[in-house]
Amino acid sequence: MKIAVDVMGTDYGPAEIIKGVLQAVSEYGCDVVLVGDQEVIRRELAREHQENNPRVTIHHASQVIEMQDHPGISVKKKKDASIVVATHLLHEKECDALVSSGSTGAAVASALFGLGRIRGIERPAIATVIPNVKGATVLVDSGAKVDAKPEQLVQNAIMGSIYAELQLGIPQPRVGLLNIGEEETKGNEQCLATYPLLKKDPHIHFIGNVEGRDINKGTVDVVVCDGFVGNVVLKTMEGLAAAVMEILKKTLMESGLFAKLGALLMKPALLRMKKQMDASEYGGALLMGVRAPFIICHGSSKAKAIKNAVRVAIELTQKDVVGRIRQEIMHDEESGEL
Amino acid sequence: MKIAVDVMGTDYGPAEIIKGVLQAVSEYGCDVVLVGDQEVIRRELAREHQENNPRVTIHHASQVIEMQDHPGISVKKKKDASIVVATHLLHEKECDALVSSGSTGAAVASALFGLGRIRGIERPAIATVIPNVKGATVLVDSGAKVDAKPEQLVQNAIMGSIYAELQLGIPQPRVGLLNIGEEETKGNEQCLATYPLLKKDPHIHFIGNVEGRDINKGTVDVVVCDGFVGNVVLKTMEGLAAAVMEILKKTLMESGLFAKLGALLMKPALLRMKKQMDASEYGGALLMGVRAPFIICHGSSKAKAIKNAVRVAIELTQKDVVGRIRQEIMHDEESGEL
Repeated sequence: MKIAVDVMGTDYGPAEIIKGVLQAVSEYGCDVVLVGDQEVIRRELAREHQENNPRVTIHHASQVIEMQDHPGISVKKKKDASIVVATHLLHEKECDALVSSGSTGAAVASALFGLGRIRGIERPAIATVIPNVKGATVLVDSGAKVDAKPEQLVQNAIMGSIYAELQLGIPQPRVGLLNIGEEETKGNEQCLATYPLLKKDPHIHFIGNVEGRDINKGTVDVVVCDGFVGNVVLKTMEGLAAAVMEILKKTLMESGLFAKLGALLMKPALLRMKKQMDASEYGGALLMGVRAPFIICHGSSKAKAIKNAVRVAIELTQKDVVGRIRQEIMHDEESGEL
Repeated sequence: MKIAVDVMGTDYGPAEIIKGVLQAVSEYGCDVVLVGDQEVIRRELAREHQENNPRVTIHHASQVIEMQDHPGISVKKKKDASIVVATHLLHEKECDALVSSGSTGAAVASALFGLGRIRGIERPAIATVIPNVKGATVLVDSGAKVDAKPEQLVQNAIMGSIYAELQLGIPQPRVGLLNIGEEETKGNEQCLATYPLLKKDPHIHFIGNVEGRDINKGTVDVVVCDGFVGNVVLKTMEGLAAAVMEILKKTLMESGLFAKLGALLMKPALLRMKKQMDASEYGGALLMGVRAPFIICHGSSKAKAIKNAVRVAIELTQKDVVGRIRQEIMHDEESGEL
């Protein structure tokens, strides 16, 4: 098993990514190819005393796609960008899966351009795992396609179900359409058109509309929405969690000794809780619908998230997630439902 | 000052609403007219020993619009529904403002049908106040209009700015368009079309795109989106907050004595924090764009939220929020910007 990792992304830079990758190599015993500026990679490997690790190879890429670059244009123009080069390695089967940590838009564009869609898939979608009170929920799409057609949302539901089954071990995942009310008559034009399509699709277990407040409740396994709404939802959760932590810290600073002592005593319990709610435990998000396993990490991924993303890449490759999607979509196509 | 309150809504029933209204009457010295089933209202007033309170009058309404009723149809069919009757009182100037706690859809439909829009306003929008780390942010629209046109989002921005200025005391509110990236080129079709309109409008202080994670950060005062996205955002926040509380409780239950003692010691600080994050401190949401002050409460409002909603209704009436919106929209219309 060999995983390509584009090391030029994330807010914390190549050092943090390489640290996570090296943890994955030692923990999971996989081979990796680090794609990016070879000088930087060599320096970081040396710093970690891993320059001679036989499981780690370097593939130089002289360019980087920046956040402000236009994804579609830059993946064509910057032919030696790390994500483009890494995608090419995946396409040429020089590796089994790819972990990207740069701009999501560039990653999606690179995958579409360099790998192509699975036949029958209209648009790829990003499946993100969100912790809930009982386990985890898959949110799909969390940012690949902002204006999705109803048929594309149905494909999100099918792909999300496969992901929930393979990765979270849920046999018949409950699929909900993210909406503003439970009733079939509620919602915007997109939801109203999508509901009947989901309802009649025999390959998913559709439980109806779900609302924002259901995502973390553990009552739905796959939450379907377009990439705009999904991205807003994810970032809203991040923002709220950060705000709560900030206010908690501020409140404790202004509090007396008893409260501070209380916080100290609670710390182990709070850390256990944090671990349960920590999205980085689930690693990166899967770009579903392209022709090879393509994992996208959050821009603020630290070493642990990168390590877990490599684990997810290995697992999804072993479980042949791409083959399963191909099979299911073909099935739907043949029965004339899509 | 006389406030009409539709008492037949909320998940907790008339008893809880009437309790909150009576607190408001004694605290703010306003007159109220309770609209709903007179038997129920009399019984609840008797229970609170307030049946002879001269500030409280009853206006009977024999019908209720239920959550599953179609809003548009039922406000026309159920002519004696509490929200329809309360809206009529407001229209006839028998009260100064209205507080509704039933179905949001029915409230919006009743306001549109019974009061009408302010001239120049295409569609009303709901402005909800969300606590952030420094104070509060106005989210507009949080559920009145699910498929909004760019011009309608500009009106949301104008109305939201007036609300932030009048109600939160922010002189030149910073307006952000809720999007999936900061760059002008990011987003769905709706955002791409709205951005240039917001940018050129001289009546608002547009600071560009904001993301979900910015809502609670205190870096933007008015967050503009359509009613679908706004509603999903609000309910996602609610759901995450509830999930965190549930997991915290469960973690503590499973923890040892030290952690439990810690929680006890931290309790006062946690309660202060909860108060800061508590949306019900800000009372109900304003339905902006209709011809009289119309406040919509959350379905899960308890007495405190109802009391605060009555306070908000009084304050917004005193500050003539409707007059200010009329003025600003007329201004925009005359300068040919809308």
